[in-house]
Amino acid sequence: MLSEFDLIAEYFNRPRPVRATLGIGDDCALLTPGAGMQTAISSDMLVEGRHFFAGADPRRLGHKSLAVNLSDLAAMGARPVGFTLALALPSAERAWLAEFSAGLFALADAHGCELIGGDTTKGPLNICITIFGELAPGEALRRDAAQPGDDIWISGTLGDARLALAACLREPGAGEELARGEDFAAAAARLHAPTPRVALGRLLAERRIAHAAIDISDGLVGDIGHILKLSRVGATLDVDALPAGPVLSRYAQEWRRAYTAAGGDDYELCFTAPATQREAVLAAGVQSGTAVTRVGRIEAEPGLRLVDAQGAPLALALQGFDHFGSA
Amino acid sequence: MLSEFDLIAEYFNRPRPVRATLGIGDDCALLTPGAGMQTAISSDMLVEGRHFFAGADPRRLGHKSLAVNLSDLAAMGARPVGFTLALALPSAERAWLAEFSAGLFALADAHGCELIGGDTTKGPLNICITIFGELAPGEALRRDAAQPGDDIWISGTLGDARLALAACLREPGAGEELARGEDFAAAAARLHAPTPRVALGRLLAERRIAHAAIDISDGLVGDIGHILKLSRVGATLDVDALPAGPVLSRYAQEWRRAYTAAGGDDYELCFTAPATQREAVLAAGVQSGTAVTRVGRIEAEPGLRLVDAQGAPLALALQGFDHFGSA
Repeated sequence: MLSEFDLIAEYFNRPRPVRATLGIGDDCALLTPGAGMQTAISSDMLVEGRHFFAGADPRRLGHKSLAVNLSDLAAMGARPVGFTLALALPSAERAWLAEFSAGLFALADAHGCELIGGDTTKGPLNICITIFGELAPGEALRRDAAQPGDDIWISGTLGDARLALAACLREPGAGEELARGEDFAAAAARLHAPTPRVALGRLLAERRIAHAAIDISDGLVGDIGHILKLSRVGATLDVDALPAGPVLSRYAQEWRRAYTAAGGDDYELCFTAPATQREAVLAAGVQSGTAVTRVGRIEAEPGLRLVDAQGAPLALALQGFDHFGSA
Repeated sequence: MLSEFDLIAEYFNRPRPVRATLGIGDDCALLTPGAGMQTAISSDMLVEGRHFFAGADPRRLGHKSLAVNLSDLAAMGARPVGFTLALALPSAERAWLAEFSAGLFALADAHGCELIGGDTTKGPLNICITIFGELAPGEALRRDAAQPGDDIWISGTLGDARLALAACLREPGAGEELARGEDFAAAAARLHAPTPRVALGRLLAERRIAHAAIDISDGLVGDIGHILKLSRVGATLDVDALPAGPVLSRYAQEWRRAYTAAGGDDYELCFTAPATQREAVLAAGVQSGTAVTRVGRIEAEPGLRLVDAQGAPLALALQGFDHFGSA
């Protein structure tokens, strides 16, 4: 049986920290922020059976645990610096730990984001990461900063993750159809190994292109609602303009609309920017290798209005994901 | 049923942040560190059945969850700034949340430490707090900074928490004795509501009195071992000089020795300071209202030597707590 200290030494203790002044092994880690810089901080807790299935592939789980946190930094426009990992495990299994840490560190290294501390304990599988990023004052893409007249943009594509979940749960309709088909693996990759849009978020913030941003984790309609509420504005969203994932694109309109508008687990950015910044948004998309699609408009009138390609009102029965709901 | 957003709004959303530039409600919180200051960061995860009993008093649990993190800042000598709270709950019970948040915020307010963000989800009860403190470069009380000739000091008293645990578990000997006696409540308060030594730690760091420090969570002998290993030194510890808690003081020597030397859950500071700083240590103890006791000496020779009041070697069968061990 691995002890707690062996476990940390073998799987989580890495060479001397580069970004942190002091890393793993003391009572606290020490970060020395750049002169005049702000620190962006976010915490996400992933629970077995709630955020991932029991028996989930540990390498993908390591990736996803950090990806959802990097996605929060991306939505703020912050540059990743480091993270802490608190991990409750039913038992310390070498094979699981080797895969989990490999997935975690592959993504961390790709973003120059350093593990600086944490905690390990025995308990029902639970992964809690707190991530730290850096940005200059005034750069942050806040939820309360959308302005009437802003365009609404979406990065990448939406809905393939929700489609994969529907297949995993054998939900009637598109879910069952995907479960029987050949595209399951492609959609499942979006569910289990999301790509945080860190480079795009950073460009949008650094160049002061965007006003407001949020990452789409609980479904676009619910998540954009946070921007509207905090910015005290409304919006019209062209549901048929929402960029469906490559797998979902081949499904019927009702599923495309439902899963792009309120799928969840997309980890794309929804951001607003003045119409004068359209060229700048497109350039940031190209430079960061991220597709960007304009899907609506922020308006002074409160409320979210969903319309189809012809501009006619759409009444979709949609709601965001609530972690204490029955969903 | 409380939704996730109602739960946060009702129990965890507090008035506009004072320390943080941006608090709860966005993708990230924003901290603006003082000019030239470092950020100290620590994470602790508390799991039901492992760190506290099922059905634990929620007010004390709120206190303890933050106290163990504040204790890490104390051991670094940092001034508390803020924390994130990630909480997995089997269900969102108003009575539990009201008590838990009351205990949490009472301690947070006492230390000017602000809740700046976090996460809530459904799942087996798990409390993960990441805490942030501030200190000037060079102030940090690091584990690798003990020097031969340093005195070893302990704050407060040791062992009452371990004695209370023994009573809760009906362990033969002192535990059974306490369970039958009238002092259980006094000892249990040390187990369930520890006092983090923030003010003392801050003085030791700010005035450059101490070299190295650690907080005692897994038992003194195990925890001081981290200082010895990282500082590449040894030590002699006078076990009979260890300050036993007021309840434990009335128990037989064998229990006093065992529970002060390797009890666990004390959340006192063990720190080292040059002999020239003895008056300064005592003054810092007085000013912070914390007893301080000199219990040994750092030596160049590796290893930890336990001795009795006469200086004779003691062979105690002790070991620190391992979160993946059978304890």
